[in-house]
Amino acid sequence: MPSHSFQWPVRVYIEDTDAGGIVYYANYLRFMERARTEFIRSLGFPRLETIDPSVLFVVHSLNLTYHRPARLDQELVVSADMAKLGRTYMVFNQKVMDGKHGDVLVSGEVMVACINQASFKPVRLPVPLNEALR
Amino acid sequence: MPSHSFQWPVRVYIEDTDAGGIVYYANYLRFMERARTEFIRSLGFPRLETIDPSVLFVVHSLNLTYHRPARLDQELVVSADMAKLGRTYMVFNQKVMDGKHGDVLVSGEVMVACINQASFKPVRLPVPLNEALR
Amino acid sequence: MPSHSFQWPVRVYIEDTDAGGIVYYANYLRFMERARTEFIRSLGFPRLETIDPSVLFVVHSLNLTYHRPARLDQELVVSADMAKLGRTYMVFNQKVMDGKHGDVLVSGEVMVACINQASFKPVRLPVPLNEALR
Amino acid sequence: MPSHSFQWPVRVYIEDTDAGGIVYYANYLRFMERARTEFIRSLGFPRLETIDPSVLFVVHSLNLTYHRPARLDQELVVSADMAKLGRTYMVFNQKVMDGKHGDVLVSGEVMVACINQASFKPVRLPVPLNEALR
Repeated sequence: MPSHSFQWPVRVYIEDTDAGGIVYYANYLRFMERARTEFIRSLGFPRLETIDPSVLFVVHSLNLTYHRPARLDQELVVSADMAKLGRTYMVFNQKVMDGKHGDVLVSGEVMVACINQASFKPVRLPVPLNEALR
Repeated sequence: MPSHSFQWPVRVYIEDTDAGGIVYYANYLRFMERARTEFIRSLGFPRLETIDPSVLFVVHSLNLTYHRPARLDQELVVSADMAKLGRTYMVFNQKVMDGKHGDVLVSGEVMVACINQASFKPVRLPVPLNEALR
Repeated sequence: MPSHSFQWPVRVYIEDTDAGGIVYYANYLRFMERARTEFIRSLGFPRLETIDPSVLFVVHSLNLTYHRPARLDQELVVSADMAKLGRTYMVFNQKVMDGKHGDVLVSGEVMVACINQASFKPVRLPVPLNEALR
Repeated sequence: MPSHSFQWPVRVYIEDTDAGGIVYYANYLRFMERARTEFIRSLGFPRLETIDPSVLFVVHSLNLTYHRPARLDQELVVSADMAKLGRTYMVFNQKVMDGKHGDVLVSGEVMVACINQASFKPVRLPVPLNEALR
């Protein structure tokens, strides 16, 4: 794994599971956002919205593959890596892995767009964020 | 059941359940808020927040008893009755019931307070709401 | 829209939103699963798991684009169409639309795999389901 | 605070909030269950269900007061203290507090019952758990 890979631990609680005894498929998106949030925080930004109040960051698209289910009490590690840094967007490569064996449970890409909060049109990433990400 | 009892149907989906095969205990609060929202809507208010933009409605306290579990695919009926109408608050009596047999699965009281959205201090309920509820 | 398009209404409640004032991105997956579940139910199967107890249906992959945000109280319509029926899987084409104007808010594909519940290996779709879907 | 008070840190993520800009009222129940689960884990039990497979632990009732809202990114501390240890149940005293100033945001009691998983009738707490809790 590349040394710049950001990783965040997540424990599976009963709230995350469904009647199939496994983590509900939408809840991995919550885990992935936690990792992205902590990645941005680790760069010195408490969170994206505080960097520039005139912009919003919204998920534009995502592409996920579910390889194996996560189960109650499992210790997971969720990674967030910058796959592509565009002028007005960021593409994250993300994996949800077993915390012990590193087996990949879910993997995919999440594209986060930077938009003006009034017009909802794409705008450039704030300069400090862009610099921190390069 | 009194004729003024407001009832709202809720279907249990896989998203609502947990690894115990039953509805997760926090999710009944979502069902109960849906019923309260639809009750207020049925009085002619699209939702509480639109009645007077200077006030907010927040849950102040609740008191619930879980009698029996709801299960995947079960058709439920959730009731919302005004138990007490105070100057600055409403107390709802709520039940989550099986839609067919009427068995009570969860019951309790939810107190919703009306507060000023700037000061967060209790304020009188908006007049049109108060009149509709009497 | 093709006449065989299955559509399911969904109302946005406060539970579905986030601090951005819009529906949280993971929650559209809950809406989409409700539509798939009701589509299968409309074919005469109370739900997938009851068709053949030896099999499980799990989401294998998904691919979503978020076009515009859904907001509190918005009335949505969620579609579920069979895009491809494989030997061991189904691909659904799904849209989350505004219920009045039909604007597409979220669109994408969700692949649901049929697996043996003991071995977790792909198995043929149950015959009655396969016949109903053709 | 008594020295035996168990405390568990929780960070508020966007997934926990609602359109009011604060934590959705049902989500504090998730935070409280995380603290109870970690409290039991800290006693040497990976989780309640593994202590004795013939029993289930279910929330029987709860009583909560919401004092102040928690906000996005806030660092919380959630406490779980044994208020009463019955023959067939445990009553937890729980608080959700600001992690820095200790302000109490939500407080209340949660009663967890031990039931037979076939009959759903109350049964004695498993001996090892009872001993660990005394």
